[in-house]
Amino acid sequence: METQSCCSPNTDTESIPSAPMLSATVKGYRAIANEVSAQLASNGVEQDANTGSPVEEVAALKQSGLLLLPVPRKYGGTGATWPKIYSVIQILSKAQGSVGQLYSNHVTLVSMGRLVGGPGQAEQYYRLTAQQNLFWANALNSRDQRLKLMSVNGAFRLNGVKSFCTGMVAADISIVLSIQEKSNHPVLCVVPMDREGITYNDDWDVMGQRRTASGSYMFYDVLVKPEEILGPPLANGTSTTLKSLISLLGQTFVYLGIAEGALEAAKEYTTTSTRAWMASDAEAATQDSFILHRYGQMWAELQAAIALAHQAAEVLQAGWEKGTALTTEERGEIAIVMASARAIAIQTGLKITNTMFDVMGARATAANYGFDRYWRDLRTFSLHDPIDYKFKDIGNWVLNQQYPTPSQYS
Amino acid sequence: METQSCCSPNTDTESIPSAPMLSATVKGYRAIANEVSAQLASNGVEQDANTGSPVEEVAALKQSGLLLLPVPRKYGGTGATWPKIYSVIQILSKAQGSVGQLYSNHVTLVSMGRLVGGPGQAEQYYRLTAQQNLFWANALNSRDQRLKLMSVNGAFRLNGVKSFCTGMVAADISIVLSIQEKSNHPVLCVVPMDREGITYNDDWDVMGQRRTASGSYMFYDVLVKPEEILGPPLANGTSTTLKSLISLLGQTFVYLGIAEGALEAAKEYTTTSTRAWMASDAEAATQDSFILHRYGQMWAELQAAIALAHQAAEVLQAGWEKGTALTTEERGEIAIVMASARAIAIQTGLKITNTMFDVMGARATAANYGFDRYWRDLRTFSLHDPIDYKFKDIGNWVLNQQYPTPSQYS
Amino acid sequence: METQSCCSPNTDTESIPSAPMLSATVKGYRAIANEVSAQLASNGVEQDANTGSPVEEVAALKQSGLLLLPVPRKYGGTGATWPKIYSVIQILSKAQGSVGQLYSNHVTLVSMGRLVGGPGQAEQYYRLTAQQNLFWANALNSRDQRLKLMSVNGAFRLNGVKSFCTGMVAADISIVLSIQEKSNHPVLCVVPMDREGITYNDDWDVMGQRRTASGSYMFYDVLVKPEEILGPPLANGTSTTLKSLISLLGQTFVYLGIAEGALEAAKEYTTTSTRAWMASDAEAATQDSFILHRYGQMWAELQAAIALAHQAAEVLQAGWEKGTALTTEERGEIAIVMASARAIAIQTGLKITNTMFDVMGARATAANYGFDRYWRDLRTFSLHDPIDYKFKDIGNWVLNQQYPTPSQYS
Amino acid sequence: METQSCCSPNTDTESIPSAPMLSATVKGYRAIANEVSAQLASNGVEQDANTGSPVEEVAALKQSGLLLLPVPRKYGGTGATWPKIYSVIQILSKAQGSVGQLYSNHVTLVSMGRLVGGPGQAEQYYRLTAQQNLFWANALNSRDQRLKLMSVNGAFRLNGVKSFCTGMVAADISIVLSIQEKSNHPVLCVVPMDREGITYNDDWDVMGQRRTASGSYMFYDVLVKPEEILGPPLANGTSTTLKSLISLLGQTFVYLGIAEGALEAAKEYTTTSTRAWMASDAEAATQDSFILHRYGQMWAELQAAIALAHQAAEVLQAGWEKGTALTTEERGEIAIVMASARAIAIQTGLKITNTMFDVMGARATAANYGFDRYWRDLRTFSLHDPIDYKFKDIGNWVLNQQYPTPSQYS
Repeated sequence: METQSCCSPNTDTESIPSAPMLSATVKGYRAIANEVSAQLASNGVEQDANTGSPVEEVAALKQSGLLLLPVPRKYGGTGATWPKIYSVIQILSKAQGSVGQLYSNHVTLVSMGRLVGGPGQAEQYYRLTAQQNLFWANALNSRDQRLKLMSVNGAFRLNGVKSFCTGMVAADISIVLSIQEKSNHPVLCVVPMDREGITYNDDWDVMGQRRTASGSYMFYDVLVKPEEILGPPLANGTSTTLKSLISLLGQTFVYLGIAEGALEAAKEYTTTSTRAWMASDAEAATQDSFILHRYGQMWAELQAAIALAHQAAEVLQAGWEKGTALTTEERGEIAIVMASARAIAIQTGLKITNTMFDVMGARATAANYGFDRYWRDLRTFSLHDPIDYKFKDIGNWVLNQQYPTPSQYS
Repeated sequence: METQSCCSPNTDTESIPSAPMLSATVKGYRAIANEVSAQLASNGVEQDANTGSPVEEVAALKQSGLLLLPVPRKYGGTGATWPKIYSVIQILSKAQGSVGQLYSNHVTLVSMGRLVGGPGQAEQYYRLTAQQNLFWANALNSRDQRLKLMSVNGAFRLNGVKSFCTGMVAADISIVLSIQEKSNHPVLCVVPMDREGITYNDDWDVMGQRRTASGSYMFYDVLVKPEEILGPPLANGTSTTLKSLISLLGQTFVYLGIAEGALEAAKEYTTTSTRAWMASDAEAATQDSFILHRYGQMWAELQAAIALAHQAAEVLQAGWEKGTALTTEERGEIAIVMASARAIAIQTGLKITNTMFDVMGARATAANYGFDRYWRDLRTFSLHDPIDYKFKDIGNWVLNQQYPTPSQYS
Repeated sequence: METQSCCSPNTDTESIPSAPMLSATVKGYRAIANEVSAQLASNGVEQDANTGSPVEEVAALKQSGLLLLPVPRKYGGTGATWPKIYSVIQILSKAQGSVGQLYSNHVTLVSMGRLVGGPGQAEQYYRLTAQQNLFWANALNSRDQRLKLMSVNGAFRLNGVKSFCTGMVAADISIVLSIQEKSNHPVLCVVPMDREGITYNDDWDVMGQRRTASGSYMFYDVLVKPEEILGPPLANGTSTTLKSLISLLGQTFVYLGIAEGALEAAKEYTTTSTRAWMASDAEAATQDSFILHRYGQMWAELQAAIALAHQAAEVLQAGWEKGTALTTEERGEIAIVMASARAIAIQTGLKITNTMFDVMGARATAANYGFDRYWRDLRTFSLHDPIDYKFKDIGNWVLNQQYPTPSQYS
Repeated sequence: METQSCCSPNTDTESIPSAPMLSATVKGYRAIANEVSAQLASNGVEQDANTGSPVEEVAALKQSGLLLLPVPRKYGGTGATWPKIYSVIQILSKAQGSVGQLYSNHVTLVSMGRLVGGPGQAEQYYRLTAQQNLFWANALNSRDQRLKLMSVNGAFRLNGVKSFCTGMVAADISIVLSIQEKSNHPVLCVVPMDREGITYNDDWDVMGQRRTASGSYMFYDVLVKPEEILGPPLANGTSTTLKSLISLLGQTFVYLGIAEGALEAAKEYTTTSTRAWMASDAEAATQDSFILHRYGQMWAELQAAIALAHQAAEVLQAGWEKGTALTTEERGEIAIVMASARAIAIQTGLKITNTMFDVMGARATAANYGFDRYWRDLRTFSLHDPIDYKFKDIGNWVLNQQYPTPSQYS
């Protein structure tokens, strides 16, 4: 509950630099995030119903200045730490899970120059992002190998199709995974979205996270300049990269934000619209013992999930600050606490998005409220990697001191 | 799982009489229900998406002969017992929760002549139903008192509006609750749907049970003949009426059917489309330990819920057969086991309709599968009376031997 | 709740034959079981605390006539069906889980002549049991192979040690598993407990089921007559034997009885001793909303578990009646519903034996009440075969139509 | 898991002053707590079985120097913050819940001079504690009003009986609640345990927390000097006192410690003694998918509970540092996060102390392991105030912004 957080571990002392294109007033980043979130929430139901492209949402993010949070100060950004960035993801996701996912992707992608870039690439893309207030998206699905990169006259060309290109339709710039034609090796490259030959198939229709525009793209002879190919990485081997952990923890905060948004929406409805059940001793629904109990349990469980996720964020930040000095063991420890936070967030969120109806009552199922979107969003987005294997990974560390093998999901 | 039920307590020895208008072949009622269910399932996703009126669905029910299950043999029906009727509700609900609800309403409404009718009314409406293969709907929401009945020249006229008129748009005949203008007493009457002055507002839009057409109706000077007014009841006072229990247990079988349908749909998807997770030791998803475990737990829990509901159906049938000799205590015992079955069905069903995604994987969230409709249907329809008060009622009997006060919900 | 069962599927029409040694009055078997249960409950706490041998308990069983329930009428017994026998196990287990386990073992062991005996052995041991009102125990732990059988002068001799000889110290006769010295094959034989050379080590000390006296035994040159060796079985191969299923379902009813006993004990305490919490609106604990809710939920969940177990008992009875005509598929179906009933009983029982304290309050933890023994008994006895593998077995049948491989545990 | 904590929010930079009577080496307080915990764990099973008085345990605490953690540095103590003190409670409780409870009481009682004392009393008792390394206990049960205080010749005398005098039998000094004979007002006084006329009835026998010696005491003309009467308090009214919150949060860390101890004990057993189930694909129990999954889930849920409790400890510390400036609202916010942490700790702990058996297997129920004591301890100690009313309190704040009324339990 934003307005009553008795125990928030976050303070809001940092401010976002007031670049001309940004909101003129200098405000705390959480205040800004809350404003954007309130704005997004106002038509979240319609946007969910219509699917469509998140153009307005990305415009709101741009306007807010929040896109520059992860860019270091020396390159023109805010230089926020991961705990702070994740707090923003959580706040945005309260309004719309889709926006939370888009922003979570963005903050990871902005950092890809540092995470997997070669010499100078981190600086280059940080600066470019700050200068142009860029919104990043991606075409990274590694299970789809239909997009090929071929060398043509000293430059490169992309040809083929790629699925799950989340948010690219509203992005300025994207990171694209393709297969190099000769070597058959995977290659990451940065592609400005105004480049010729890129076409969206507008084929995204799922039961949740509907405004992420995660459909497929066609690439016809799309130019890639040599300097747009990322890497080889400066130092970290696969065993110590934080790439997937940063992304997975970002998703965890999307889950938490969706759950928190659900609880706030329920509270708003119960306090304004729910009538006490005829068998209740209470005169108002807000005094009903069972309703109070359920709210208390939902809130307490959510706080535990949030507390663990914030702890994971602190641990990840410490790892991030170690840079190339991060050891395999340290990386493993971050992976374990991230996995724990993720699994608990999913468990808790699913319970809340389901239970919220018990405290609102039958009339809250009217389609115009759109209260089912919280469950649909969370249920959809929480299936990326199975929770059962998160628990197995954690158990394998608890019992056998084995860290999970670094991968896209651990 | 229909095709593999190792432990079904139902046998299928009764047959439906082959009246001319019915399917020519004499088949077991469960076989017929399964056929209708399969037919309905084939376009369940589209119908859910489009909302609209359940005209096709009701036509299928009519064609099947299943509408006559509750009509005693001597009046031209099948004379099935409640356990058998409820089995059919369960089977139909596997395909579409909306159809299950419509059919569950129908079987209760067909029996209203016996439950609350005056002399001869039971026979009259049983016969009429059998002769014309009638589909019954209702306008019974007791919280909405805007529909008035006035006496005009020896007959009666209905005027006003009524909400939650489930299925009336596709019905032949309905039971309507109105307030008598002078006495201010509630009155139940039977209204053929071809009577003049009845208009549907087509305003039903909720997140689940979307094809029940439960919107509001306008009544303009609608004629009600004196003999169409139900009651006064032959014998039973409120304290021994089975009216609400029959209806509430019918809803319980809708919940079970939705859950069973969800489990069957998940099984079909897992066995044909789910790939083993990359971290799994198994080659196929169908051999994955966690997936097998989840299926086992879902199935076992569902069987327990079904077993209890079937036990409730047997107890209710025994009470039904007692007719006017039913005592307050016996009615109370039926109410308790019904409440238990209902609460367990809801708990179990919500768990299954949520967990089914964990055993299908992320791609199962594509909108064309419509797998979220199971949760949306169950979540919507299970809010009629709060589960917390069911448990409280049961607890009050366990601790204090107090039966629930008979009402629309207990 | 025995005295208020609104929905018991059992009737009590059969009576126990009034053999001279039995209680003179002919009563229904459930009434007798309830009497024995009440008698046992009166010093259950002390017996749990003292461990020791269940001599008194077995004497009570003998006195009651219940030992002859599974013996067919033609051999002098009651000829009760499995559903009825299991009901008695459930009733006895309410008082003491240990007695339930002993009696559950007895009824399976009495039937071993039929299940695995050679020609005439079924009849022989049924008759002997009826004539002498025998109590059966066992030394069947197949993981302990230290007990050897050797052929000596046309008879056999047992030598060695055997662990987990549940109840043998209070038994008249036992079934013993040993390894034939030459062939190294397992052999089952029937050993009267008054035979020379059998010594109990009195080494049973576990946290629950403390009065089962399941310690180890020494065998010194114990005589076994040739006709006391069981088998070879008449017809059924391993793939269709019901031996383990009968035993495992018996254990399931022990679990249910323990849970039911816990709920009854809690009810007794709450209604007589629990004070309403200071923050409660209710004047009495029995009117507290949360306490009522918890009782309702515990009771409803227990009824679902019981309903499923009774269904399993019916299915098993049908299989039993098929005798040697039972097919592998039919055996498999019984195994699946048994596994489901077992897993649900464990889940439900653990929840109840834990939650009972929340509805009794802090003072109920006084040692003299012994309320923790319900949890300790159930927790101990439910570990025989892991619940996770029950669910996996069930899931493998749901998804792949594979029946569990017959074994001691499935 | 102490040895592998990847994500502990605690660092161990503070050291305990090496007073002559303390362990000579200066060590981190967590290291010392771990040593004491290991020492206590070595005979925890026997001590639980024998009940008896915690004399050895208190001696170990004294020897360790941990008794002085809450005493400010300027009075000769360590001056540790509440988060650090609570960490020690958690560590000690891993070994023995009883010791955790005794120590948790001690740290609150040491602070009573500050919390409710009059001028100079805080300093006086802090100093005395440091000088003599005192162990504090209490006789504070406010529901028992049989102990009277009367004024005799300028001093006071205690007469009567008091129940629930936790740990007094092993204490140096106690805080005693009595009723002033004339005014009938409650009075708190400090009573050295060597004073004449105090007799323990040795009547503590409950199912858990057996070594807390919480039996009743007789007081015969026990002298109380005027300066030993606590208060009146310096500033804080009831509405802002932290007294109960400090104590209740201490109990929360006892719960967490018990749960953590259970998980560590289970891990030790599984890795050394559990055999893979016969149906498992794994060769070792430590590779079994279900066992790993359960460990992962237990651990992750425990981390979330711990993270929330540590957050509560930080919030409480901030409130403590405000001293008399603490507002009603701030006190209320601490109460809410404390209640949340407490409820989640109980839920999580009960799950772990129950589930630990599923990952150890049947042989782990042998009495000599004493693994049931974790559940018995937690189940017993978690009933002090009902979890349902914690959730209701929290819900009342979430929905209605009402803080719980300060009391012994909120």
